[in-house]
Amino acid sequence: MNYELYIITDEHIDFGKTHAEIAELAIAGGADVIQLRDKSCSSRELIRIGRVIHGITRRSSTIFIVNDRLDVALACGADGVHLGQGDMRTDVARQIAPPGFIIGVSVRNVEEACRAEREGADYVALSPTFSTGSKPDAGPGHGLDMLREIQRNVSVTVIAIGGIHRGNIGEVIAAGAAGVAVISAVVGATDIAAAARDLKNLIRQCKAGGHP
Amino acid sequence: MNYELYIITDEHIDFGKTHAEIAELAIAGGADVIQLRDKSCSSRELIRIGRVIHGITRRSSTIFIVNDRLDVALACGADGVHLGQGDMRTDVARQIAPPGFIIGVSVRNVEEACRAEREGADYVALSPTFSTGSKPDAGPGHGLDMLREIQRNVSVTVIAIGGIHRGNIGEVIAAGAAGVAVISAVVGATDIAAAARDLKNLIRQCKAGGHP
Repeated sequence: MNYELYIITDEHIDFGKTHAEIAELAIAGGADVIQLRDKSCSSRELIRIGRVIHGITRRSSTIFIVNDRLDVALACGADGVHLGQGDMRTDVARQIAPPGFIIGVSVRNVEEACRAEREGADYVALSPTFSTGSKPDAGPGHGLDMLREIQRNVSVTVIAIGGIHRGNIGEVIAAGAAGVAVISAVVGATDIAAAARDLKNLIRQCKAGGHP
Repeated sequence: MNYELYIITDEHIDFGKTHAEIAELAIAGGADVIQLRDKSCSSRELIRIGRVIHGITRRSSTIFIVNDRLDVALACGADGVHLGQGDMRTDVARQIAPPGFIIGVSVRNVEEACRAEREGADYVALSPTFSTGSKPDAGPGHGLDMLREIQRNVSVTVIAIGGIHRGNIGEVIAAGAAGVAVISAVVGATDIAAAARDLKNLIRQCKAGGHP
Protein backbone atom coordinates (compact mmCIF):
# COMPACT_ATOMS: atom_id res chain seq x y z
CA MET A 1 0.00 0.00 0.00
CA ASN A 2 1.30 3.41 -0.95
CA TYR A 3 0.30 6.25 1.35
CA GLU A 4 2.71 8.87 -0.05
CA LEU A 5 0.21 11.57 -0.90
CA TYR A 6 -2.94 11.28 1.16
CA ILE A 7 -5.63 13.88 0.48
CA ILE A 8 -8.47 14.61 2.86
CA THR A 9 -11.44 16.12 1.07
CA ASP A 10 -13.03 19.10 2.76
CA GLU A 11 -15.78 21.02 1.05
CA HIS A 12 -15.67 23.78 3.60
CA ILE A 13 -12.20 25.19 2.98
CA ASP A 14 -12.17 25.04 -0.79
CA PHE A 15 -13.64 27.27 -3.45
CA GLY A 16 -17.04 25.66 -3.82
CA LYS A 17 -15.95 22.25 -5.10
CA THR A 18 -17.69 19.04 -4.04
CA HIS A 19 -15.93 16.11 -2.36
CA ALA A 20 -16.09 14.18 -5.64
CA GLU A 21 -14.60 17.04 -7.66
CA ILE A 22 -11.79 17.42 -5.12
CA ALA A 23 -11.10 13.67 -5.26
CA GLU A 24 -11.04 13.64 -9.06
CA LEU A 25 -8.59 16.57 -9.27
CA ALA A 26 -6.35 15.27 -6.45
CA ILE A 27 -6.10 11.89 -8.18
CA ALA A 28 -5.28 13.58 -11.49
CA GLY A 29 -2.40 15.24 -9.61
CA GLY A 30 -1.11 11.95 -8.23
CA ALA A 31 -2.91 11.37 -4.90
CA ASP A 32 -2.42 7.84 -3.57
CA VAL A 33 -5.17 8.00 -0.94
CA ILE A 34 -8.45 9.92 -0.73
CA GLN A 35 -10.10 10.32 2.65
CA LEU A 36 -13.71 11.49 2.78
CA ARG A 37 -14.36 13.60 5.83
CA ASP A 38 -17.61 15.47 6.46
CA LYS A 39 -19.05 15.86 9.93
CA SER A 40 -21.98 17.98 8.78
CA CYS A 41 -24.02 15.88 6.37
CA SER A 42 -26.46 13.05 7.09
CA SER A 43 -25.44 9.40 6.96
CA ARG A 44 -27.44 8.87 3.79
CA GLU A 45 -25.84 11.83 2.04
CA LEU A 46 -22.37 10.75 3.17
CA ILE A 47 -22.96 7.27 1.72
CA ARG A 48 -24.20 8.80 -1.55
CA ILE A 49 -21.04 10.95 -1.81
CA GLY A 50 -18.87 7.99 -0.77
CA ARG A 51 -20.27 5.82 -3.55
CA VAL A 52 -19.43 8.46 -6.14
CA ILE A 53 -15.87 8.73 -4.78
CA HIS A 54 -15.59 4.94 -4.69
CA GLY A 55 -16.33 4.89 -8.42
CA ILE A 56 -13.61 7.50 -9.02
CA THR A 57 -10.92 5.87 -6.83
CA ARG A 58 -11.59 2.39 -8.22
CA ARG A 59 -10.87 3.54 -11.78
CA SER A 60 -7.42 4.77 -10.74
CA SER A 61 -6.57 2.18 -8.04
CA THR A 62 -6.44 4.96 -5.46
CA ILE A 63 -7.05 3.93 -1.84
CA PHE A 64 -10.38 5.23 -0.54
CA ILE A 65 -10.77 5.83 3.19
CA VAL A 66 -13.79 7.17 5.11
CA ASN A 67 -13.24 9.21 8.26
CA ASP A 68 -14.70 7.91 11.56
CA ARG A 69 -17.78 6.10 10.19
CA LEU A 70 -17.12 2.39 9.73
CA ASP A 71 -20.76 1.82 8.76
CA VAL A 72 -20.55 4.46 6.03
CA ALA A 73 -17.23 3.01 4.83
CA LEU A 74 -18.78 -0.46 4.52
CA ALA A 75 -21.93 0.92 2.88
CA CYS A 76 -20.06 2.76 0.13
CA GLY A 77 -17.45 0.11 -0.63
CA ALA A 78 -14.48 2.06 0.76
CA ASP A 79 -11.13 0.36 1.23
CA GLY A 80 -10.87 1.47 4.83
CA VAL A 81 -11.73 3.74 7.72
CA HIS A 82 -9.68 6.35 9.56
CA LEU A 83 -10.26 6.47 13.31
CA GLY A 84 -9.46 9.28 15.72
CA GLN A 85 -8.86 8.78 19.42
CA GLY A 86 -12.54 9.69 20.00
CA ASP A 87 -13.81 7.25 17.38
CA MET A 88 -14.38 3.50 17.59
CA ARG A 89 -11.44 1.56 19.05
CA THR A 90 -9.20 -0.14 16.51
CA ASP A 91 -9.70 -3.67 17.86
CA VAL A 92 -13.49 -3.25 17.84
CA ALA A 93 -13.42 -1.96 14.26
CA ARG A 94 -11.15 -4.87 13.28
CA GLN A 95 -13.74 -7.33 14.61
CA ILE A 96 -16.55 -5.75 12.57
CA ALA A 97 -14.62 -5.03 9.36
CA PRO A 98 -14.11 -7.68 6.65
CA PRO A 99 -10.65 -9.20 6.04
CA GLY A 100 -8.23 -6.88 4.23
CA PHE A 101 -10.09 -3.75 5.28
CA ILE A 102 -7.67 -0.87 5.99
CA ILE A 103 -7.78 0.74 9.42
CA GLY A 104 -5.82 3.92 10.04
CA VAL A 105 -5.56 5.66 13.38
CA SER A 106 -4.69 9.22 14.42
CA VAL A 107 -2.20 9.20 17.28
CA ARG A 108 -0.56 11.89 19.40
CA ASN A 109 2.31 9.95 20.94
CA VAL A 110 4.25 6.68 21.01
CA GLU A 111 1.86 5.04 23.48
CA GLU A 112 -1.18 5.61 21.25
CA ALA A 113 0.79 4.50 18.20
CA CYS A 114 1.87 1.24 19.87
CA ARG A 115 -1.67 0.58 21.09
CA ALA A 116 -3.09 1.20 17.59
CA GLU A 117 -0.56 -1.23 16.12
CA ARG A 118 -1.33 -3.86 18.77
CA GLU A 119 -5.07 -3.45 18.14
CA GLY A 120 -4.68 -4.03 14.41
CA ALA A 121 -4.08 -0.69 12.69
CA ASP A 122 -2.60 -0.73 9.19
CA TYR A 123 -1.15 2.73 9.55
CA VAL A 124 -0.89 5.46 12.16
CA ALA A 125 -0.98 9.18 11.51
CA LEU A 126 0.78 11.61 13.87
CA SER A 127 -1.96 14.23 14.22
CA PRO A 128 -1.32 17.07 14.17
CA THR A 129 2.34 16.95 13.21
CA PHE A 130 2.36 20.74 13.02
CA SER A 131 -0.41 23.05 14.23
CA THR A 132 -3.07 23.56 11.60
CA GLY A 133 -5.88 25.91 10.72
CA SER A 134 -7.88 23.22 8.89
CA LYS A 135 -8.79 21.50 12.14
CA PRO A 136 -8.55 24.16 14.86
CA ASP A 137 -9.54 21.75 17.65
CA ALA A 138 -6.55 19.51 16.90
CA GLY A 139 -4.26 21.43 19.28
CA PRO A 140 -0.53 22.17 18.97
CA GLY A 141 1.71 20.18 16.66
CA HIS A 142 3.57 17.20 18.12
CA GLY A 143 6.61 17.84 15.94
CA LEU A 144 9.21 15.92 13.98
CA ASP A 145 10.97 14.43 17.02
CA MET A 146 7.72 12.70 17.95
CA LEU A 147 7.34 11.52 14.36
CA ARG A 148 10.85 9.94 14.52
CA GLU A 149 10.07 8.43 17.93
CA ILE A 150 6.88 6.79 16.66
CA GLN A 151 8.62 5.62 13.52
CA ARG A 152 11.24 3.86 15.71
CA ASN A 153 8.61 2.17 17.88
CA VAL A 154 6.09 0.70 15.44
CA SER A 155 6.40 -1.43 12.34
CA VAL A 156 3.18 -0.27 10.69
CA THR A 157 3.21 2.60 8.22
CA VAL A 158 3.59 6.04 9.81
CA ILE A 159 2.25 9.11 8.07
CA ALA A 160 2.16 12.76 9.09
CA ILE A 161 -0.92 14.97 9.14
CA GLY A 162 -1.53 18.59 10.10
CA GLY A 163 0.12 21.79 8.95
CA ILE A 164 2.11 20.20 6.14
CA HIS A 165 2.89 22.25 3.03
CA ARG A 166 5.53 22.45 0.29
CA GLY A 167 7.86 24.34 2.63
CA ASN A 168 8.13 21.61 5.29
CA ILE A 169 7.27 18.42 3.39
CA GLY A 170 10.97 17.67 2.88
CA GLU A 171 11.79 17.54 6.58
CA VAL A 172 8.66 15.44 7.26
CA ILE A 173 9.77 12.79 4.76
CA ALA A 174 13.36 13.06 6.05
CA ALA A 175 12.02 12.39 9.56
CA GLY A 176 10.74 9.02 8.33
CA ALA A 177 7.12 9.57 7.35
CA ALA A 178 5.99 7.12 4.66
CA GLY A 179 3.56 9.73 3.46
CA VAL A 180 1.84 13.00 4.23
CA ALA A 181 -1.84 13.73 4.60
CA VAL A 182 -2.96 17.22 3.67
CA ILE A 183 -6.15 19.18 3.39
CA SER A 184 -5.58 22.89 2.78
CA ALA A 185 -2.22 22.56 0.96
CA VAL A 186 -4.10 20.85 -1.86
CA VAL A 187 -7.84 21.37 -1.35
CA GLY A 188 -7.37 25.07 -0.62
CA ALA A 189 -5.31 25.64 -3.79
CA THR A 190 -6.79 27.32 -6.84
CA ASP A 191 -5.50 24.45 -8.98
CA ILE A 192 -5.95 21.30 -6.90
CA ALA A 193 -4.38 18.94 -9.46
CA ALA A 194 -1.28 21.13 -9.82
CA ALA A 195 -0.89 21.47 -6.03
CA ALA A 196 -1.13 17.69 -5.63
CA ARG A 197 1.37 17.11 -8.44
CA ASP A 198 3.80 19.57 -6.86
CA LEU A 199 3.65 17.85 -3.44
CA LYS A 200 3.94 14.42 -5.02
CA ASN A 201 7.08 15.49 -6.89
CA LEU A 202 8.58 16.93 -3.72
CA ILE A 203 7.89 13.66 -1.84
CA ARG A 204 9.44 11.60 -4.63
CA GLN A 205 12.53 13.85 -4.84
CA CYS A 206 12.99 13.70 -1.09
CA LYS A 207 12.59 9.91 -0.99
CA ALA A 208 15.12 9.61 -3.82
CA GLY A 209 17.60 11.29 -1.50
CA GLY A 210 17.72 14.77 -2.92
CA HIS A 211 16.23 17.32 -0.62
CA PRO A 212 13.72 19.43 -2.55
CA MET B 1 -40.77 -9.18 19.49
CA ASN B 2 -42.71 -6.87 21.74
CA TYR B 3 -42.48 -3.19 20.93
CA GLU B 4 -45.33 -2.02 23.20
CA LEU B 5 -43.44 0.51 25.25
CA TYR B 6 -40.40 1.86 23.42
CA ILE B 7 -38.31 4.40 25.31
CA ILE B 8 -35.82 6.69 23.61
CA THR B 9 -33.17 7.88 26.04
CA ASP B 10 -32.34 11.56 25.87
CA GLU B 11 -30.00 13.11 28.37
CA HIS B 12 -30.84 16.61 27.27
CA ILE B 13 -34.51 16.81 28.27
CA ASP B 14 -34.28 15.04 31.61
CA PHE B 15 -33.22 16.17 35.03
CA GLY B 16 -29.53 15.34 34.84
CA LYS B 17 -29.79 11.58 34.47
CA THR B 18 -27.47 9.61 32.22
CA HIS B 19 -28.61 7.38 29.36
CA ALA B 20 -27.88 4.32 31.48
CA GLU B 21 -29.87 5.62 34.46
CA ILE B 22 -32.81 6.45 32.19
CA ALA B 23 -32.65 2.96 30.67
CA GLU B 24 -32.52 1.28 34.07
CA LEU B 25 -35.54 3.20 35.40
CA ALA B 26 -37.57 2.80 32.20
CA ILE B 27 -36.99 -0.96 32.26
CA ALA B 28 -38.01 -1.08 35.94
CA GLY B 29 -41.27 0.55 34.82
CA GLY B 30 -41.87 -2.02 32.08
CA ALA B 31 -40.16 -0.70 28.94
CA ASP B 32 -39.91 -3.32 26.18
CA VAL B 33 -37.41 -1.46 24.03
CA ILE B 34 -34.64 1.01 24.83
CA GLN B 35 -33.28 3.19 22.04
CA LEU B 36 -30.04 5.06 22.61
CA ARG B 37 -30.02 8.37 20.81
CA ASP B 38 -27.30 10.98 21.20
CA LYS B 39 -26.15 13.14 18.32
CA SER B 40 -23.69 15.12 20.42
CA CYS B 41 -21.13 12.68 21.78
CA SER B 42 -18.16 11.05 20.04
CA SER B 43 -18.35 7.58 18.53
CA ARG B 44 -16.13 6.18 21.27
CA GLU B 45 -18.25 7.70 24.05
CA LEU B 46 -21.45 6.47 22.38
CA ILE B 47 -20.04 2.94 22.22
CA ARG B 48 -19.02 3.14 25.88
CA ILE B 49 -22.55 4.20 26.89
CA GLY B 50 -24.08 1.60 24.58
CA ARG B 51 -22.08 -1.19 26.20
CA VAL B 52 -23.35 -0.18 29.63
CA ILE B 53 -26.94 -0.14 28.35
CA HIS B 54 -26.39 -3.47 26.63
CA GLY B 55 -25.50 -4.96 30.02
CA ILE B 56 -28.69 -3.54 31.53
CA THR B 57 -31.05 -4.61 28.74
CA ARG B 58 -29.58 -8.11 28.53
CA ARG B 59 -30.36 -8.80 32.19
CA SER B 60 -34.05 -8.00 31.59
CA SER B 61 -34.43 -9.31 28.01
CA THR B 62 -35.28 -5.79 26.87
CA ILE B 63 -34.64 -5.00 23.20
CA PHE B 64 -31.75 -2.58 22.74
CA ILE B 65 -31.69 -0.37 19.66
CA VAL B 66 -29.14 2.29 18.66
CA ASN B 67 -30.27 5.31 16.68
CA ASP B 68 -28.76 5.93 13.22
CA ARG B 69 -25.28 4.41 13.82
CA LEU B 70 -25.08 0.82 12.61
CA ASP B 71 -21.36 0.71 13.42
CA VAL B 72 -22.00 1.79 17.01
CA ALA B 73 -24.86 -0.72 17.31
CA LEU B 74 -22.57 -3.55 16.16
CA ALA B 75 -19.72 -2.37 18.39
CA CYS B 76 -21.81 -2.37 21.56
CA GLY B 77 -23.75 -5.58 20.97
CA ALA B 78 -27.13 -3.91 20.43
CA ASP B 79 -30.06 -5.93 19.08
CA GLY B 80 -30.74 -3.46 16.32
CA VAL B 81 -30.53 -0.05 14.73
CA HIS B 82 -33.17 2.59 14.10
CA LEU B 83 -32.82 4.42 10.79
CA GLY B 84 -34.34 7.75 9.78
CA GLN B 85 -34.98 8.78 6.19
CA GLY B 86 -31.64 10.63 6.25
CA ASP B 87 -29.75 7.63 7.64
CA MET B 88 -28.36 4.57 5.86
CA ARG B 89 -30.87 2.86 3.55
CA THR B 90 -32.57 -0.20 5.00
CA ASP B 91 -31.39 -2.62 2.30
CA VAL B 92 -27.80 -1.44 2.69
CA ALA B 93 -27.96 -1.87 6.47
CA ARG B 94 -29.48 -5.33 5.98
CA GLN B 95 -26.48 -6.36 3.86
CA ILE B 96 -23.99 -5.23 6.53
CA ALA B 97 -25.88 -6.41 9.64
CA PRO B 98 -25.67 -10.00 10.90
CA PRO B 99 -28.68 -12.36 10.65
CA GLY B 100 -31.44 -11.61 13.15
CA PHE B 101 -30.36 -8.01 13.62
CA ILE B 102 -33.37 -5.71 14.10
CA ILE B 103 -33.79 -2.80 11.70
CA GLY B 104 -36.44 -0.17 12.43
CA VAL B 105 -37.24 2.73 10.13
CA SER B 106 -38.90 6.10 10.69
CA VAL B 107 -41.48 6.78 7.97
CA ARG B 108 -43.75 9.69 7.13
CA ASN B 109 -46.20 8.03 4.76
CA VAL B 110 -47.38 4.78 3.18
CA GLU B 111 -44.83 4.92 0.37
CA GLU B 112 -41.88 5.12 2.79
CA ALA B 113 -43.41 2.39 4.96
CA CYS B 114 -43.82 0.02 2.01
CA ARG B 115 -40.29 0.74 0.82
CA ALA B 116 -38.88 0.09 4.30
CA GLU B 117 -40.74 -3.22 4.44
CA ARG B 118 -39.56 -4.20 0.96
CA GLU B 119 -35.96 -3.33 1.90
CA GLY B 120 -36.04 -5.51 5.00
CA ALA B 121 -37.26 -3.45 7.97
CA ASP B 122 -38.53 -5.32 11.02
CA TYR B 123 -40.71 -2.44 12.10
CA VAL B 124 -41.69 1.00 10.89
CA ALA B 125 -42.38 4.01 13.10
CA LEU B 126 -44.72 6.77 11.92
CA SER B 127 -42.64 9.82 12.86
CA PRO B 128 -43.88 12.15 14.11
CA THR B 129 -47.39 10.83 14.74
CA PHE B 130 -48.22 14.07 16.54
CA SER B 131 -46.10 17.21 16.58
CA THR B 132 -43.48 17.13 19.32
CA GLY B 133 -41.21 19.41 21.26
CA SER B 134 -38.60 16.69 21.86
CA LYS B 135 -37.49 16.80 18.23
CA PRO B 136 -38.43 20.23 16.94
CA ASP B 137 -37.11 19.55 13.42
CA ALA B 138 -39.48 16.60 12.99
CA GLY B 139 -42.23 18.79 11.52
CA PRO B 140 -46.01 18.52 11.93
CA GLY B 141 -47.66 15.29 13.04
CA HIS B 142 -48.89 12.90 10.35
CA GLY B 143 -51.88 11.85 12.42
CA LEU B 144 -53.89 8.76 13.23
CA ASP B 145 -55.44 8.38 9.76
CA MET B 146 -51.92 7.97 8.35
CA LEU B 147 -51.13 5.47 11.11
CA ARG B 148 -54.19 3.39 10.10
CA GLU B 149 -53.31 3.71 6.42
CA ILE B 150 -49.75 2.42 7.01
CA GLN B 151 -51.03 -0.34 9.27
CA ARG B 152 -53.31 -1.51 6.38
CA ASN B 153 -50.49 -1.48 3.84
CA VAL B 154 -47.60 -3.26 5.53
CA SER B 155 -47.29 -6.52 7.40
CA VAL B 156 -44.33 -5.52 9.56
CA THR B 157 -44.86 -4.08 13.04
CA VAL B 158 -46.06 -0.46 13.05
CA ILE B 159 -45.33 1.78 16.01
CA ALA B 160 -46.09 5.43 16.65
CA ILE B 161 -43.56 8.06 17.70
CA GLY B 162 -43.81 11.77 18.43
CA GLY B 163 -46.08 13.74 20.75
CA ILE B 164 -47.52 10.69 22.52
CA HIS B 165 -48.56 11.00 26.18
CA ARG B 166 -51.05 9.42 28.58
CA GLY B 167 -53.88 11.57 27.16
CA ASN B 168 -53.66 10.26 23.57
CA ILE B 169 -52.03 6.84 23.96
CA GLY B 170 -55.45 5.15 23.91
CA GLU B 171 -56.39 6.44 20.48
CA VAL B 172 -52.92 5.59 19.12
CA ILE B 173 -53.30 1.95 20.17
CA ALA B 174 -56.92 1.95 18.95
CA ALA B 175 -55.64 3.18 15.56
CA GLY B 176 -53.61 -0.02 15.29
CA ALA B 177 -50.14 0.81 16.62
CA ALA B 178 -48.39 -2.25 18.04
CA GLY B 179 -46.53 0.06 20.37
CA VAL B 180 -45.58 3.61 21.16
CA ALA B 181 -42.17 5.23 21.34
CA VAL B 182 -41.81 8.12 23.74
CA ILE B 183 -39.11 10.43 25.01
CA SER B 184 -40.44 13.28 27.10
CA ALA B 185 -43.55 11.48 28.44
CA VAL B 186 -41.20 9.18 30.33
CA VAL B 187 -37.69 10.67 30.30
CA GLY B 188 -39.03 14.13 31.19
CA ALA B 189 -40.99 12.80 34.19
CA THR B 190 -39.75 13.29 37.73
CA ASP B 191 -40.30 9.58 38.38
CA ILE B 192 -39.25 7.80 35.17
CA ALA B 193 -40.15 4.30 36.37
CA ALA B 194 -43.64 5.40 37.48
CA ALA B 195 -44.26 7.23 34.20
CA ALA B 196 -43.22 4.14 32.22
CA ARG B 197 -45.42 1.88 34.38
CA ASP B 198 -48.39 4.19 33.88
CA LEU B 199 -48.04 4.19 30.06
CA LYS B 200 -47.48 0.43 30.00
CA ASN B 201 -50.69 -0.13 31.98
CA LEU B 202 -52.64 2.17 29.67
CA ILE B 203 -51.34 0.29 26.60
CA ARG B 204 -52.27 -3.05 28.16
CA GLN B 205 -55.75 -1.87 29.14
CA CYS B 206 -56.35 -0.50 25.69
CA LYS B 207 -55.12 -3.67 23.98
CA ALA B 208 -57.41 -5.70 26.28
CA GLY B 209 -60.31 -3.78 24.78
CA GLY B 210 -61.13 -1.34 27.53
CA HIS B 211 -60.31 2.23 26.61
CA PRO B 212 -58.26 3.76 29.40
